[in-house]
Amino acid sequence: METKTRTLLEKLLTGNRIALGQAITLIESKSPADQVEARKLISHLPPVKQAWRLAVSGAPGVGKSTFIDSLGSFLIRRHHKVAVLAIDPSSGLSGGSILGDKTRMLGLGRSPDAFVRPSPAGGLLGGVAGATYEASLLCEAAGYDIILIETVGVGQSEVTAQHLADFFILLIQPGSGDDLQGLKKGIAEQADLLVVNKWDADLISEAERTKAAFQLARPNKNREIPLVSSIEQKGFEHLWQVIIRQISQLDLIEKKNNRQVFWFLESTRRLVLACIMEAHTDLFKRLEDEIRNENMHYTAAIEEAMEIICHHYKL
Amino acid sequence: METKTRTLLEKLLTGNRIALGQAITLIESKSPADQVEARKLISHLPPVKQAWRLAVSGAPGVGKSTFIDSLGSFLIRRHHKVAVLAIDPSSGLSGGSILGDKTRMLGLGRSPDAFVRPSPAGGLLGGVAGATYEASLLCEAAGYDIILIETVGVGQSEVTAQHLADFFILLIQPGSGDDLQGLKKGIAEQADLLVVNKWDADLISEAERTKAAFQLARPNKNREIPLVSSIEQKGFEHLWQVIIRQISQLDLIEKKNNRQVFWFLESTRRLVLACIMEAHTDLFKRLEDEIRNENMHYTAAIEEAMEIICHHYKL
Repeated sequence: METKTRTLLEKLLTGNRIALGQAITLIESKSPADQVEARKLISHLPPVKQAWRLAVSGAPGVGKSTFIDSLGSFLIRRHHKVAVLAIDPSSGLSGGSILGDKTRMLGLGRSPDAFVRPSPAGGLLGGVAGATYEASLLCEAAGYDIILIETVGVGQSEVTAQHLADFFILLIQPGSGDDLQGLKKGIAEQADLLVVNKWDADLISEAERTKAAFQLARPNKNREIPLVSSIEQKGFEHLWQVIIRQISQLDLIEKKNNRQVFWFLESTRRLVLACIMEAHTDLFKRLEDEIRNENMHYTAAIEEAMEIICHHYKL
Repeated sequence: METKTRTLLEKLLTGNRIALGQAITLIESKSPADQVEARKLISHLPPVKQAWRLAVSGAPGVGKSTFIDSLGSFLIRRHHKVAVLAIDPSSGLSGGSILGDKTRMLGLGRSPDAFVRPSPAGGLLGGVAGATYEASLLCEAAGYDIILIETVGVGQSEVTAQHLADFFILLIQPGSGDDLQGLKKGIAEQADLLVVNKWDADLISEAERTKAAFQLARPNKNREIPLVSSIEQKGFEHLWQVIIRQISQLDLIEKKNNRQVFWFLESTRRLVLACIMEAHTDLFKRLEDEIRNENMHYTAAIEEAMEIICHHYKL
């Protein structure tokens, strides 16, 4: 490990936010030299008290950012240190980024006990989602004991969130309980806790009706569905009690070990694949050209590539 | 190719819907014997007139299924043959499936010129999304000249849709033009065409305001934003004129070749990786156990796996 990286690690372990930010930037770097240093940095993180990792998801417009801002502010008043990360598997490709607009987290952004980081655009070992995992390890080492992970609406990111968090909160909008808001059943089933947001102003009774509708729709699941108003910061005391009660029943050590296994496999697969693709650049270039010039069907190119590679490595 | 598969191919090429359904099931099969046959089937598809592939996306609740039903019915009245596929990368994991509820496509479902297929739960070469690509090739060979691809809300599936479709339609809900409906900028930018749905009843003027708001927000993009009512089947004549005009300016052959290159790379990567993981089952099992028993940090396991594999293959 270079002296620079060692200094970064030392500062990070004292809870220095600038060092934490720099360390996450190192992880996201695509430069090979940075990647070597980033891996050393992660492998040198000392064992620390395990943070609680909570994923927060929900359809666009349900108020994820405001909810995280309010929950985070509530936790800081309770003397927690709160890190907010985002997982958005498409951000590397589309250039978009959630949490990109820092003004959306005015409450948290001002607190010295909060650290807010937008979705990474790259990733060292496991791509964008892997970078979020590694960032969570750095936050933990820097003394953040609650890590809130915001995910984009509906889709692959929820599946990935399972491999990042101990506990999965799905936010629900008042007033569309009937059709379960076009939520895919799978995702509502995967959530550890449903929370109805916007329990305020005109929406109070609608929020309560929605809660009842979802309780009916999940007969075999936990029927406790807290109501909160993120804008009025209402309901968070009760919500937090529910979360504490449920998390205390989980085996967090086992979850941590499963996460490590998952990211070990994910990262190794990526690295092996990168090595093999690199070793056969010419082959892939030639077959790509054949396809593009319509000399070869893509299935024939797959067969040829597999034959050459399997023969080469005696697979 | 087995006689059974050859018979399936012959029937499929006559436009037999049952054969088409069976062929897609063959592609989705996880049995190794089926997979061999599926690859042979795809590689034996004759060159046919290229279908137009249109992806349809939008936030949950915007009315994607109803829109596809109405657009599909409109196209069938214009003597097209329409296939509807779905891409949902998380379906293989969560067990959910869009288009699962066939009653949502009552109009199309009844027509002999339509073929509606829910999101695949597996995939031969390229996972779930790859199976959708392969299914589109089969539909094309069976004589369907328009393929509509429904994607789930927001996230990775839109990025994948780019590799499945020639043209990307993003549906917009009336009444939330101000905040761009929490749409990530990236996705709105990637769409070839924005369409405001629900241009009916109480929402007519709201739909028109939303159209104007999005036109302002996309100053450098195509400003044509058609309004439709999927329920009243209104606006589809104009929408289709806009789509025809825009698609006729695209190089569809180049898009097809790029798609083939993409799925060649994607599929080959998956197959190579599967071979290597299989060849080192014991190594991965051992390292997984080490991590689970907390004898080894996951980064150390990555290093060890890479060293052994790279040494083994002289990478």
